[in-house]
Amino acid sequence: MSTFRPSRRGVLTGAAVAGAAGVGAGLTAVAARPGQATAASRTVAFHGARQAGITTPQQDSLVFAALDVTTSRAGELADVLQRWSAAAATMATGTPVGGPGGLGGAAEEPPQDTGEAHELPAANLTVTLGYGPSLFDSRFGLADRRPAALEELPPLPGEQLDPTKVGGDLCLQACADDPQVAFHAVRNLVRIGRGVVRVRWMQLGFGRTSTTSSAQSTPRNLMGFRDGTANLKAEDTSDLDRHVWVGGQGAPAVDQEWMRGGTYLVARRIRMLIEAWDRASLGEQERVIGRAKESGAPLSGTHEFDALDLAKTTAHGKPAIDVAAHVRLAAPQSNGGVKLLRRGYSYTDGLDGATGQLDAGLFFIVFGNDPAHQFVPLQRKLGSQDALTEYLKHTGSGIFACPPGTASGGAWGEGLFG
Amino acid sequence: MSTFRPSRRGVLTGAAVAGAAGVGAGLTAVAARPGQATAASRTVAFHGARQAGITTPQQDSLVFAALDVTTSRAGELADVLQRWSAAAATMATGTPVGGPGGLGGAAEEPPQDTGEAHELPAANLTVTLGYGPSLFDSRFGLADRRPAALEELPPLPGEQLDPTKVGGDLCLQACADDPQVAFHAVRNLVRIGRGVVRVRWMQLGFGRTSTTSSAQSTPRNLMGFRDGTANLKAEDTSDLDRHVWVGGQGAPAVDQEWMRGGTYLVARRIRMLIEAWDRASLGEQERVIGRAKESGAPLSGTHEFDALDLAKTTAHGKPAIDVAAHVRLAAPQSNGGVKLLRRGYSYTDGLDGATGQLDAGLFFIVFGNDPAHQFVPLQRKLGSQDALTEYLKHTGSGIFACPPGTASGGAWGEGLFG
Ligand code: HEM
Ligand code: HEM
Repeated sequence: MSTFRPSRRGVLTGAAVAGAAGVGAGLTAVAARPGQATAASRTVAFHGARQAGITTPQQDSLVFAALDVTTSRAGELADVLQRWSAAAATMATGTPVGGPGGLGGAAEEPPQDTGEAHELPAANLTVTLGYGPSLFDSRFGLADRRPAALEELPPLPGEQLDPTKVGGDLCLQACADDPQVAFHAVRNLVRIGRGVVRVRWMQLGFGRTSTTSSAQSTPRNLMGFRDGTANLKAEDTSDLDRHVWVGGQGAPAVDQEWMRGGTYLVARRIRMLIEAWDRASLGEQERVIGRAKESGAPLSGTHEFDALDLAKTTAHGKPAIDVAAHVRLAAPQSNGGVKLLRRGYSYTDGLDGATGQLDAGLFFIVFGNDPAHQFVPLQRKLGSQDALTEYLKHTGSGIFACPPGTASGGAWGEGLFG
Repeated sequence: MSTFRPSRRGVLTGAAVAGAAGVGAGLTAVAARPGQATAASRTVAFHGARQAGITTPQQDSLVFAALDVTTSRAGELADVLQRWSAAAATMATGTPVGGPGGLGGAAEEPPQDTGEAHELPAANLTVTLGYGPSLFDSRFGLADRRPAALEELPPLPGEQLDPTKVGGDLCLQACADDPQVAFHAVRNLVRIGRGVVRVRWMQLGFGRTSTTSSAQSTPRNLMGFRDGTANLKAEDTSDLDRHVWVGGQGAPAVDQEWMRGGTYLVARRIRMLIEAWDRASLGEQERVIGRAKESGAPLSGTHEFDALDLAKTTAHGKPAIDVAAHVRLAAPQSNGGVKLLRRGYSYTDGLDGATGQLDAGLFFIVFGNDPAHQFVPLQRKLGSQDALTEYLKHTGSGIFACPPGTASGGAWGEGLFG
């Protein structure tokens, strides 16, 4: 079940060894310490000035749900948001919904927690909430609370959207180092929201394709390339203020106070044309990305973290990084300094029934405080000029406003409805 | 990316610490030992008398593919099986397809390995091959090599099969403790087989729902119950001989010598009616399973591993384990001693477009040497009498003959085609 079972077994074994030997506190402590330290480092606090799951070191698994609100009563929605916050905070500590007894309780009642994550560590679970533009229509009296930045995305080149994977009044991004823990979180929140919200679409991600902390190694995406090298990281606090957090130093002016300290999430389900990619030569693949496959170094340099040198030419006088290379076109220096916090995951949904080919790729998630001047122009450019576009198809899409974090005792929705 | 990143980071850190301090062998050994031991224990040998992935301690992630053969030339198929064995053996050591240099190579050539598992540990990867009944039709001259036990499953109660998730000439079961490693294995084998085989359907599993070794703790399935408690385990060697291995001591007679030492795999994609289950009371859930939710103990006992006491009655004179309870109906003592090796995974494929409900459940995989007298009668009974059936729908199905293992230097298919 748990991808953490090996370490978890470590914890149990430590305790078991100490117990069986009937030894004193000394050995118990020694035997249990490594496991306990690991277990402790596996929780991410739910409460705080920012929502968790944005600059949190990126976990291994994603369950992303876009939801629609089915009630027309704002109070019911606010109530669900409040109950969600409590449940998310509880689950973040590895505790069942409803508290330690949530798995059981009275025989006549359905258990409060669905139970599949019981006894699993919290595995760094984070749940991040977002509001879609449609939430600010006439239903809940929120029309004048919509931040200008929260607009439906315009049509973009390179997309062939599946209408069943677009939009949503709300989103929940659950990330954890154990897929069962992430699934459990979304399932239980959906259950709490029954009658008020309904899942519109869902996406599982099985491997992170980015890094959000300098302490993390760079993973590889399904094209086999290191992904996340030049990403914004948690340590880049002044860049985060400027490009990610609403109201940060150097960021655009705030039009809705309730969004101060929040950010915008853009999700794109990007299918890779795996078969075509797998037939491309190593040279072509590296030209398309602009980096070496093995090392991740830019083709203008030697080491993964060398800065791009877009002016550098080869012995034959050609640009070392191709004019159509993904990194050249996406880099801040080609886009008036625009930087993004990428936090995507690899996905596969088995076969595409129509073509019999693998439906797999990257579920791209990106955070920024000004999508209309960050993601949108960038994707407009990439979708028409990027050599990578030949191997991609954007099939799902959503934009969501992620409010700031909540203080202990606070709840999601309090800024918006309060 | 990798679900093993935390432990892996442990390994790297151990080495880094030792290296940075420039210390002697003593501290290096101490710092690196735990990580190295873990890393070493994360490979499962591909070669051996049995195929790996059957009694191997169950890993955390599954990628299961059913494939059809698109050529009509047996030689081409045998050739793919041979290349698959070599690739599977290589990947089982954590090495790219094509050897350590498989990620790169000549710039003009496509890389031999797709790269997304590069630098990840092998994560106990196993790949298990099976042949479907349809492989033994007239196409490849194999009709007289079909074991009698390898028959298409008859229609069974409780099923509503999706024709796009049934059957297959071949199956590949890839299991690993990292989903990216399991995905990488299937993707690369499919790529090697291009032009000869084609994926028919695929299933991802994200959490094991069983145990195949006494050293493993019992996981929970998506109903929140411990699953795997009374499973056959690797240590039950005489039961495995009798119930699982073809030609084992006490097993039915062998009709096809090439299957000696092999077994049959039955896969069932079993959707859980999650919403209905979540509304059931704790008492009803426990009655349906026949075990306590928290502890996993049979309702006739106190501890998880207590034997079922089917005769025990409550103070009110009712059977402690309900007459329609899943474990009563499935237990060997109710089925002439039939035992199975279960090795299933939880799955979710997001939403069911038709109902808007979660499409999630258990991808049931079971091994046995006599499906017509093991799985088939058992499911016939469960599908009509089991209280659990009300909460389930079988939506996918396949049966496959898994040949024995191959010796070092040997290859899949040698017994069948040799
Ligand atoms: C499946 C689709 C995509 C793949 C496979 C992909 C892959 C990569 C790779 C391998 C890198 C180099 C390593 C790194 O710095 O992270 C990279 C960089 C980058 N990508 Fe993408 N990418 C995809 C889509 C996008 C999209 C849709 C955007 C934004 C609209 C984007 C924006 C960026 C940016 C800003 C960089 C950093 C460039 C730099 O500063 O050097 N990518 N991508
Ligand atoms: C989604 C479907 C299913 C669920 C949720 C489920 C769940 C469970 C649970 C919770 C147990 C008790 C713990 C254990 O001993 O493992 C169990 C036992 C068992 N199940 Fe299932 N099961 C399912 C389908 C099946 C099917 C299709 C079969 C065979 C046709 C089967 C055969 C068995 C057997 C043989 C046992 C052991 C009974 C004993 O000896 O005590 N199960 N199952």
